[in-house]
Amino acid sequence: MNKRGFAYLKSLGLVSLGLVTSVAEAKEPARNPNIVLIFADDLGYGDLGCFGASQYQTPHLDQLAARGMKFTHFYVSQAVCSASRAALMTGCYANRVGISGALNPFAETGLNPDEETIAEVLKKKDYRTIAIGKWHLGHHPQFLPTSQGFDEYLGIPYSNDMWPLTYDNVRATPQTNVRKASFPELPLLENTQKIDEFRTIADQEKITTLYTEKAVRFIHDNQNSPFFLYLAHSMPHVPLAVSEKFKGKSNQGLYGDVLMEIDWSVGEIVAALEQCGLTENTLVIFTSDNGPWLNFGNHAGSAGGLRQGKGTSFEGGQRVPCIMAFPGTIPAGTVCSNIASTIDLLPTFAALAGAPLPSRKIDGISILPLLAGNFSANPRNEFYYYYRQNSLEAVRKGDWKLVFPHPGRNYEGFAPGQNGLGGKVNDQFNFEGGLYDLRRDPGERYNLQPFYPEIVAELEKVARQAREDLGDDLTGNPGKNRRKPGSLN
Amino acid sequence: MNKRGFAYLKSLGLVSLGLVTSVAEAKEPARNPNIVLIFADDLGYGDLGCFGASQYQTPHLDQLAARGMKFTHFYVSQAVCSASRAALMTGCYANRVGISGALNPFAETGLNPDEETIAEVLKKKDYRTIAIGKWHLGHHPQFLPTSQGFDEYLGIPYSNDMWPLTYDNVRATPQTNVRKASFPELPLLENTQKIDEFRTIADQEKITTLYTEKAVRFIHDNQNSPFFLYLAHSMPHVPLAVSEKFKGKSNQGLYGDVLMEIDWSVGEIVAALEQCGLTENTLVIFTSDNGPWLNFGNHAGSAGGLRQGKGTSFEGGQRVPCIMAFPGTIPAGTVCSNIASTIDLLPTFAALAGAPLPSRKIDGISILPLLAGNFSANPRNEFYYYYRQNSLEAVRKGDWKLVFPHPGRNYEGFAPGQNGLGGKVNDQFNFEGGLYDLRRDPGERYNLQPFYPEIVAELEKVARQAREDLGDDLTGNPGKNRRKPGSLN
Repeated sequence: MNKRGFAYLKSLGLVSLGLVTSVAEAKEPARNPNIVLIFADDLGYGDLGCFGASQYQTPHLDQLAARGMKFTHFYVSQAVCSASRAALMTGCYANRVGISGALNPFAETGLNPDEETIAEVLKKKDYRTIAIGKWHLGHHPQFLPTSQGFDEYLGIPYSNDMWPLTYDNVRATPQTNVRKASFPELPLLENTQKIDEFRTIADQEKITTLYTEKAVRFIHDNQNSPFFLYLAHSMPHVPLAVSEKFKGKSNQGLYGDVLMEIDWSVGEIVAALEQCGLTENTLVIFTSDNGPWLNFGNHAGSAGGLRQGKGTSFEGGQRVPCIMAFPGTIPAGTVCSNIASTIDLLPTFAALAGAPLPSRKIDGISILPLLAGNFSANPRNEFYYYYRQNSLEAVRKGDWKLVFPHPGRNYEGFAPGQNGLGGKVNDQFNFEGGLYDLRRDPGERYNLQPFYPEIVAELEKVARQAREDLGDDLTGNPGKNRRKPGSLN
Repeated sequence: MNKRGFAYLKSLGLVSLGLVTSVAEAKEPARNPNIVLIFADDLGYGDLGCFGASQYQTPHLDQLAARGMKFTHFYVSQAVCSASRAALMTGCYANRVGISGALNPFAETGLNPDEETIAEVLKKKDYRTIAIGKWHLGHHPQFLPTSQGFDEYLGIPYSNDMWPLTYDNVRATPQTNVRKASFPELPLLENTQKIDEFRTIADQEKITTLYTEKAVRFIHDNQNSPFFLYLAHSMPHVPLAVSEKFKGKSNQGLYGDVLMEIDWSVGEIVAALEQCGLTENTLVIFTSDNGPWLNFGNHAGSAGGLRQGKGTSFEGGQRVPCIMAFPGTIPAGTVCSNIASTIDLLPTFAALAGAPLPSRKIDGISILPLLAGNFSANPRNEFYYYYRQNSLEAVRKGDWKLVFPHPGRNYEGFAPGQNGLGGKVNDQFNFEGGLYDLRRDPGERYNLQPFYPEIVAELEKVARQAREDLGDDLTGNPGKNRRKPGSLN
């Protein structure tokens, strides 16, 4: 930790003294640091080199981790696109703000403009704000980024597979795929205006470059103002697409090539910050919206040993890789194994910027102490795994996870898909529940429920708190504190 | 990579040019670098911070990784003490040199003195060599380190549970535990002489300190000579013991405390190298002999999402965390996801030292190109998972692992042990076999054998090579190239 970063965190009362040897020359803290939040799509826990990926390298991300902090127990609120993003943007469990699943091109709902987003929080401190990439919190103007605190927006309003092409890049007809055939061409929006559309996979091949170039320009243009750059990559969500210069570069086909391009993009952004002299005054975060969509086989990522993937509340669905770098502030080469979540980012950013929190109740907790290397502070020891509208499928406290019986999704026993076509999934799966020690058993393989009634009781207590507050469709409890999404009607 | 390190690897023809921008000022290469090999006991894939551990920090090991290279697909030859160590020492699959299982205090065999060890290879280049800690390759003088190329030895000849105390620290009698009661007190050997014995767990609490102090002294005493320091910790093998200063320091009871002390020990060694000005001329390696002994519950480590643990050929048994640091030579903050193994260390060290390889056939392959960051060189693309005397339980090629039907061990369905007492294990388990994509499925959960006959055929080819060479008890093939262990008779 350098003097400047140290002084900054010291001013917030957050420095763990064990990490620091001298404070004599501490300078004025950096105020209003820039924040760059890079959010990948369907990228699994095991998909980065520094999280165990094989067959391709992610040197820029690995370096980001070596210069910063790797989070190994970092969660999204729900393992599906829109819900995960609603939680990220609001610091709330997704069900609290009434968003679930993945909004489609005909959705008449979106993130309620009454909710306060990260961008709105930072605007109070005069941050320049931009959203680039996939939004997926409503495609009508009143739900788009520019109505939610962002000065600018460039990207696609929902997932890159929500277009009239099937996964193997064939144009759907009402006869071959009635749902797909009904979708409009995938639009590229600038603020609220459609400025282009993606009609073929060749169009999507340019998407990561497009986003990256826009992000780099934004950094250069705003180097004299504090800024919040939210870059939500469309990749590696299917249909996979990569630019010419990365085709065939990995040992893992198109998926590996796409990861290498995302890694390149991170490198470009880090380089732009460096060129602008902003490295030590910028918090850079890289994470993902949910785990891998495993039935896509060679076009899916890896949950790195965690159970299941996207669309489930098992660890493989909700635990994602996360790296945070803030040279001079976050101690380099550290690993944080405390529980943390995307919902904790809003209050953390608010604390960094000195901005007030939203007036409505949020679920996030500032993890600034963790960024200072003060792991014993342990701001979050519990986590709720809600899924669908409002089903409390599991709770975690410390290392223990209690999973309740629930209908789910299972990737076992099926041939995985190939080359863009999805394989089958058991969507009729009924999980019987279980108690897991995530320390000894991060793969949720050894059900210990029969052996530890006292731990089950402790976790039931956590679940009761959750049900009182947010409810639980599985037990028929409506909860009392859920809010409504935005709606056209 | 600094100039010196670069020049060193360049002299070996190993530098990947992509990593280097200028060679104009390259100096003479460092010759005969020191090698420090730290080998933990029963430490699992998920037991270090930088590999996802929770509830305690391993800052020195995490820093070692940040300054060096993390290996995420690093294997031991067999997931049990003596076999794993025989392979490490000889660069051979354990069954090739006739060692299996764990030698007990009445064993009349040991590592055949005719095998050439790492220490013997390095002695040809006048390295000073020391073994500290657990040996477990025969406790009779002719099998001990000082008969196998080491100038010095201080440690215990076999596992720290091979003494007359049961795991809960009660002295066994012929009535309570006939096997335990028959064991002699656990000796501390200096070279071939017993200089002390461990009679209580309090004695074992000093063991990590004892080893560490010896290692630090050795570094200081030999700073002007190339040296090989092999430090094989007794911990975290049960019975766990930790010195006073680490008791209660972790959030994970005794196991976490022990890991913190091992991390401290690594810090002491790194500091000693730094004090002696040897940092840039020393390769430091940290790894483990096999995965966690899972039935010991809170006294066991974590396989970090990999399947099963010690005593199995699943990934949780044989894949271990590995860190290599060689500042100025190994590029900092890198991650190697290529397959590599403890059996590759001997030829790698030989290449570093410029020493000839053993005259007998070995299985290891130099991984120096990986150390130079040249991952596309991919020296090892195949691996054999032998277990017991000579059972070929699985083979790996690239990301694919084919597991053959075999009798095994299963930790599922049982209450784990507590506080030193082991829980049950299903030792009657018969595994039906399966094909796994270790990229998408490192937890070996999704059997794809029915869906990919052509990949099964390719892996069967690898298995045939293994059987021709080394044999396979499971198919009744004796093999033709196995050698005998050392024997008293």
